[in-house]
Amino acid sequence: MQSQGLPGFRDFFPDETAFRNHMFAVWRSVAARYGFEEYDGPPLEPLELYTQKSGDEIVGQLYTFADKGGRAVSLRPEMTPTLARMVALRARALKKPIRWFSIPQLFRYERQQRGRLREHFQLNMDIVGEPGPLADAELIAAAVDAVRAFGLTDQNFRARISDRRVAHALLAAQGLTDSQIAIAYLHIDKLDREERQALVESLGRQANLSAAAAEQVLDIGTVKDLEALRAALAGASLDDEVGAELAECVDALAAMGLADFVDVDLSVVRGLAYYTGIVFELFDAQRSLRSICGGGRYDGLLKVLGGVDLPATGFGMGDVVLGEVIKQHCPSTQPGPQLDAFLVAVTAEDLPHVLRLAHDLRERGRAVEFALKQQSVTKQFKLAAARSARRAVLIGPDERVAGVVVVRDLETGEEERVEVSRLMEDYGW
Amino acid sequence: MQSQGLPGFRDFFPDETAFRNHMFAVWRSVAARYGFEEYDGPPLEPLELYTQKSGDEIVGQLYTFADKGGRAVSLRPEMTPTLARMVALRARALKKPIRWFSIPQLFRYERQQRGRLREHFQLNMDIVGEPGPLADAELIAAAVDAVRAFGLTDQNFRARISDRRVAHALLAAQGLTDSQIAIAYLHIDKLDREERQALVESLGRQANLSAAAAEQVLDIGTVKDLEALRAALAGASLDDEVGAELAECVDALAAMGLADFVDVDLSVVRGLAYYTGIVFELFDAQRSLRSICGGGRYDGLLKVLGGVDLPATGFGMGDVVLGEVIKQHCPSTQPGPQLDAFLVAVTAEDLPHVLRLAHDLRERGRAVEFALKQQSVTKQFKLAAARSARRAVLIGPDERVAGVVVVRDLETGEEERVEVSRLMEDYGW
Repeated sequence: MQSQGLPGFRDFFPDETAFRNHMFAVWRSVAARYGFEEYDGPPLEPLELYTQKSGDEIVGQLYTFADKGGRAVSLRPEMTPTLARMVALRARALKKPIRWFSIPQLFRYERQQRGRLREHFQLNMDIVGEPGPLADAELIAAAVDAVRAFGLTDQNFRARISDRRVAHALLAAQGLTDSQIAIAYLHIDKLDREERQALVESLGRQANLSAAAAEQVLDIGTVKDLEALRAALAGASLDDEVGAELAECVDALAAMGLADFVDVDLSVVRGLAYYTGIVFELFDAQRSLRSICGGGRYDGLLKVLGGVDLPATGFGMGDVVLGEVIKQHCPSTQPGPQLDAFLVAVTAEDLPHVLRLAHDLRERGRAVEFALKQQSVTKQFKLAAARSARRAVLIGPDERVAGVVVVRDLETGEEERVEVSRLMEDYGW
Repeated sequence: MQSQGLPGFRDFFPDETAFRNHMFAVWRSVAARYGFEEYDGPPLEPLELYTQKSGDEIVGQLYTFADKGGRAVSLRPEMTPTLARMVALRARALKKPIRWFSIPQLFRYERQQRGRLREHFQLNMDIVGEPGPLADAELIAAAVDAVRAFGLTDQNFRARISDRRVAHALLAAQGLTDSQIAIAYLHIDKLDREERQALVESLGRQANLSAAAAEQVLDIGTVKDLEALRAALAGASLDDEVGAELAECVDALAAMGLADFVDVDLSVVRGLAYYTGIVFELFDAQRSLRSICGGGRYDGLLKVLGGVDLPATGFGMGDVVLGEVIKQHCPSTQPGPQLDAFLVAVTAEDLPHVLRLAHDLRERGRAVEFALKQQSVTKQFKLAAARSARRAVLIGPDERVAGVVVVRDLETGEEERVEVSRLMEDYGW
């Protein structure tokens, strides 16, 4: 017998599916408010779609195999390549800017550790075809609202925003070469997780920098607002214009009323080969979990992946970390499914009347059950309670003669006899 | 560039995703009315889950491979093994009867033909833990309602119901052995697709029966109602009791008011190794497509698959055939997504006010967009029209001074100036 699924893959029992559906419904409602349309692609794609950008190194994390037709295929580890492929198929017909979202299940063969999963669902939102910082602001606002919509506040999570062009300019002004900058990014990225002195030493060693130069590199991680940004640019004899797009994005978020959720933070780096401009992350306020969401501008990537040269900005928000934050701060907000009525047949002759009433109620959109076998009224009431029905409706020979049913409120125990002709109206059914 | 996905796998562009989401929403609402709870499992499962029942022959249709840990795994070709596995994990805690549904995406490597797909979505509904025919009737009613809910009528589709125990008894009464009965089923199953004389000859040859005996076997396909069923049982000197469960199921469906959708039809066979009792299919009325839905009772299967001996009955309803029937009979019922408002900024100084209003409207659940770059009012109105916004709301320097906005109805072209303080109330926002 095979009762366990694969390690790293979740079974969704009804409670877990209800939570997942709730999350997806909230995400969809926020996406709709921002004018985003939903799309989806196949969970299995040609392997080449993932290797053409990242090279073969990503293959180590892919669920990849040869299908029966000999094609090299892979379960999707991320959605952007599929987005690029689909946008390329209809690039001319689609009105720009394209606002699309999707909630794919993604698969990565990560080494099994600390209950790390090998699949998760991820809200992907992307704006394609608009290079300006308002598009980035719009997406960051959507990401913030996609978390706020669960009842989470600026006390529970924060967005941190940077701009890779700003960071690059500051580091280049310090005399770093591009290869030194790449090493610098990897160290800046660890600033809030690792000890600073160790990072200074490691950076100095790897990038061949003096301790003072390494200190100066890591100092860009201390830039935490627009004022500090302007000071840093001035200190490096750089024009304010270098930080103009980041400032415009942050100002737009403030105009939307979201300033309390947003921090400038040049220590945000994100994927090196991927992002080209504004980048951002959402974290729980305690920084005790992995990121809730990450994204940014990836102009140029759609051309590499799909052959269509359109600017793009987007983010991915996983269901796992956000789910933990929601459960921590907003426990049990949504009620479980509830039956409107459980119908009880006293004798076998009452059953057809129960069946008829059940179908009438279901036609009106009510959730209704009844016992699927002949059993005592007591047992039927027990089943009604076990199914969390709000009311039981009893039909017996006496009731049929009188043209009534007995309605019992299963919370209060109160019963009343109701004429069949008035039942729907009396209970708003 | 890889712009095409794999053959047999669909891309869901926004229109197609909207149709799919509509289908899933209707299915979920019908399932809720019947008191079913949603579950889901992993799309990737241990290969053994599928081979332990069906043997190795099913492997030819599976997307199966070895993962990086050396496990033999497979994309799920059907949902029942996962259901069995999950029920087994919590068999004691779950209150019976279990009413569960799921809408998994399933994968089979079918030989590529006539645009045949290698993935589809399937509504699975199952009742576990109740052996009686009322459970079967409940499921068939749910299947019928899951199609009716799209606006389809008894002129568009029909349910055909049989009982494998009845067919078996009639064939055994004709003196057939179990191996002859298995061959007989395969021919009965083809009665409405192939020429009768050819079937008589093939059956006679394969089952070693005379032409007269083969004719008699195929005659059970002519049993199309309960009266004919009783006559056939009497003709074979069988007790009415043999057909009692089928009759009880059909009578229950009639009591629910669904008699017009349901035909008794002993030519319905379904999977040989799978079903043990009542079986059924839903077809388009013209029988021009593959089945919309198929299912039946599979007592014993959960024990083989999951190690828990519980009676069960269920069905699977795919999204592809039903989608074709809906598009044929109920074209374009659901409107596309529509923006409530597209906000227009006359000058750069108006933008913060547009951003603030956009976020206020989104907080109220309204779908709102605005141009993501500075451009002429004319271009912004064009974009508003391209996004199918109902209204445009314009903010310019004059309007800001006067504390008003201009609201243009994009269908009628009518404009009015509205005080900002009254905007939400006046438009029900």
